[in-house]
Amino acid sequence: MVVKDGIRPGGRSARVQAAVHAATRELLARMDRAELTIPMIAAAAGVTPSTIYRRWHDLPSLLADVAVARLRPDAEPARTGTLRGDLDAWLEQYVDEICSAPGRAMTADALACDPRDRNAGSCAAYIRQQLEAIVGRAAERGEPVPGLDALMDHVVAPVVYRIVFGHETVAPAFWRGLLDRVLAETKR
Amino acid sequence: MVVKDGIRPGGRSARVQAAVHAATRELLARMDRAELTIPMIAAAAGVTPSTIYRRWHDLPSLLADVAVARLRPDAEPARTGTLRGDLDAWLEQYVDEICSAPGRAMTADALACDPRDRNAGSCAAYIRQQLEAIVGRAAERGEPVPGLDALMDHVVAPVVYRIVFGHETVAPAFWRGLLDRVLAETKR
Repeated sequence: MVVKDGIRPGGRSARVQAAVHAATRELLARMDRAELTIPMIAAAAGVTPSTIYRRWHDLPSLLADVAVARLRPDAEPARTGTLRGDLDAWLEQYVDEICSAPGRAMTADALACDPRDRNAGSCAAYIRQQLEAIVGRAAERGEPVPGLDALMDHVVAPVVYRIVFGHETVAPAFWRGLLDRVLAETKR
Repeated sequence: MVVKDGIRPGGRSARVQAAVHAATRELLARMDRAELTIPMIAAAAGVTPSTIYRRWHDLPSLLADVAVARLRPDAEPARTGTLRGDLDAWLEQYVDEICSAPGRAMTADALACDPRDRNAGSCAAYIRQQLEAIVGRAAERGEPVPGLDALMDHVVAPVVYRIVFGHETVAPAFWRGLLDRVLAETKR
């Protein structure tokens, strides 16, 4: 499937996408996803099922598209004035989101369709962009900054792995310890 | 869904599971998974669809069960005589498996059903058991050994994150660098 990033806002295509996404989100909020069907979503969105099949091909692809759209950050990371403060605030919010039941379901949806597609890549790219913004602000202030790969590999990856593959709830002490370690290395 | 770990081998229930798993694997090997249905699997396995619905509830849960069974290691890790050699050999094989198209599809299937279930936890547990065997052998030989958490958080997690969430093919230099770092810390 293809994530419809390039749709002209306000066009017919964008209105269809917005209506289908909204209908999917509403139905997901009040019913079991195992019972959700494309005809149901079509009826709620006021489009024909074939409109949905033509564009998204199947339900997992539509759910993945909706999940990725919801995982896209809607604001720049909070500003606390320090690198450590910004990273702490961002991680706390991120961990809360992906540990929540809707967050876990969205992550699974985003990974669930054809593994050749780029959805999961988008999730990692969104996170990297947020960290890049935080690190860029710190660099402007003249703070020593860690590399983005170090943050992705040794802070984000272990947190996400424990939550998604280990079904654990990670404690703040865990991710703060990971941050301490990466930040200590920038000062060596 | 429930992974059927406790089934008595050879019983009727185990025979049904083996037939349904085998039919699912065969159909997955020769058709697109988007076209796979429970009635098709039932016909191939020689059981009724309601047998499958009663036991696995829905197709994502069945696919997850099949994927987790395939991800379960079928042998102890290769013995090379050193900790570093064993870890290198195990990682090389593991990365090959999860980077392959069937490996990526299995990982997605394992994560795709109800996120409250324990499938993804099983994947992490299988990996941890393999690493535990390798580290245990090294400790018996008197080699200094890293903690399992360090191996999971700083070697396995970044490798899996890049493959699953970043859709990257990780190079041997990447995971060897991660291993170097964790092993260097055991010698401090």
